[in-house]
Amino acid sequence: MSLLTIGSVAFDAIETPFGKVDKIIGGAASYISIAASYFVKPVNVVAVIGEDFTSKEMEVFHNRSVNTDGINVKKGEKSFFWSGRYHNDMNSRDTLVTEPNVMEDFNPEIPESYQDCEFLMLGNLDPIIQMRALKNLKKRPSLVVLDTMNFWMDTKREYLDEILKEVDILSLNDEEARQLTSEYSLVKAAKKILSLGLKYVVIKKGEHGALLFGKENIFFVPAIPLEEVFDPTGAGDTFAGGFIGYLAKTKDLSFQSIKKAVIHGTTMASFCVEKFGPERLLDLTDLEIKNRYQEVINLTQVEYTV
Amino acid sequence: MSLLTIGSVAFDAIETPFGKVDKIIGGAASYISIAASYFVKPVNVVAVIGEDFTSKEMEVFHNRSVNTDGINVKKGEKSFFWSGRYHNDMNSRDTLVTEPNVMEDFNPEIPESYQDCEFLMLGNLDPIIQMRALKNLKKRPSLVVLDTMNFWMDTKREYLDEILKEVDILSLNDEEARQLTSEYSLVKAAKKILSLGLKYVVIKKGEHGALLFGKENIFFVPAIPLEEVFDPTGAGDTFAGGFIGYLAKTKDLSFQSIKKAVIHGTTMASFCVEKFGPERLLDLTDLEIKNRYQEVINLTQVEYTV
Repeated sequence: MSLLTIGSVAFDAIETPFGKVDKIIGGAASYISIAASYFVKPVNVVAVIGEDFTSKEMEVFHNRSVNTDGINVKKGEKSFFWSGRYHNDMNSRDTLVTEPNVMEDFNPEIPESYQDCEFLMLGNLDPIIQMRALKNLKKRPSLVVLDTMNFWMDTKREYLDEILKEVDILSLNDEEARQLTSEYSLVKAAKKILSLGLKYVVIKKGEHGALLFGKENIFFVPAIPLEEVFDPTGAGDTFAGGFIGYLAKTKDLSFQSIKKAVIHGTTMASFCVEKFGPERLLDLTDLEIKNRYQEVINLTQVEYTV
Repeated sequence: MSLLTIGSVAFDAIETPFGKVDKIIGGAASYISIAASYFVKPVNVVAVIGEDFTSKEMEVFHNRSVNTDGINVKKGEKSFFWSGRYHNDMNSRDTLVTEPNVMEDFNPEIPESYQDCEFLMLGNLDPIIQMRALKNLKKRPSLVVLDTMNFWMDTKREYLDEILKEVDILSLNDEEARQLTSEYSLVKAAKKILSLGLKYVVIKKGEHGALLFGKENIFFVPAIPLEEVFDPTGAGDTFAGGFIGYLAKTKDLSFQSIKKAVIHGTTMASFCVEKFGPERLLDLTDLEIKNRYQEVINLTQVEYTV
């Protein structure tokens, strides 16, 4: 009965109009596990890192009761490294460096103690590795959520198509949904994706919020309008962490519950952008999360009368 | 005790990926008055047209109980004409032709029978004309709402600044809000606008919905995700018509009521984009509007429990 996430655990260098950091914890599985840790404990992680990850960095995970038994440390090698610079509007960025390093031959082995996995979040990764991870599980989890990006649509489309048949919920951004389906309308894009057999699709629109599509339902959550976005890095992964964390906590997969999961994803992402990398996610209180969750809801609530 | 709108009544030629029309009723005051007519009757209009507007076109207004006594017909002249072509994504368009014609020396005289105006919607117009209209009213209306666009920020900024001091609510789109305030964040932009003395600002984000900012409150309404946008022409003006129409109907200027006005604006705009020009707005039923209003609300509603 546990939550497992598989993805990158990495170092990032980030430059925004507000400042820069040369080396901060990054990677999809880092954001996902830390965000989800506010809903369930432990969160199990499968990833691969190099020797440059020190005990100081591992402590960040342990402080959040994230189980790192499945993080494979490769002797003499370096962790995945990404470096990017945001433009002034914070809505676009240039990737300056991508060093796959240990990710080149990542084989996501699942420790025996993780095999009871009920909720699986496949972070953005090569779909071949995502598929390998799924096959390394002896029993299919109750819920499989997958995140992906345009890079895999460009380079590994046939493998992405394969893994999409195996998942329950796909999370991706609006441009990716358009690219995946060749449909500009997000409604049409979502219908095409759902026709592959998925139960739900979550389309993230950044500052414009997120759309949840089921076979017969649509739900929308706005992003909180902010005076300042300090650093958007990891916001999408943090969304995924809050989303699956809430579902793993409640074990309720009704549409009503999935809606709340999208609000929790939005809530956690709104914290993420307030500081560099995952910094703001390291010491949240339950009250802060509860208040922010209510703030998101209040943005759109109205009395039910015309 | 009445609703008055002042703005352009015009002819448009529109080309979208779905087809084209060479001559269809257009102009801010047309959309505003027709949309508002579903909430209050009559809606009074002040505008200027040429002799090319025939009784067939005037009938469109009369069928919706729009009072056209304030529409000045200039003998031997032509009405304002705009022609535009939408790009494939329907989010951007090229203006092909703008012929001001009768609008060149539009003097918005207010008929005596309109002088009891309680709710005034100043449609997008030269701010000098908007100011003239306001001065031609013997008594300040209870509520003055103003719509504007980037063109006036570029060319008549000082006059726009002047009229902004006289209005209660400004309605504009996100790019215009950014240009007006030199702030990228819409929260900062709204604060700057409110600091001029306005009570509320509505920032329209097209397919991404609309934000309502008060001094201490923010409210957000999503646009209904659509499979197809047939023709976005007039959607912003239709929004304004639904917005002020609802307020004129209820005469309630509480934040709760302004929220509902924004939802009604969104509702009416969602109909507008379904056909060319104002066509879809000519024969709506109260039930269609009620159901669509509920659909907008349902998009974001969630039970109030964590």
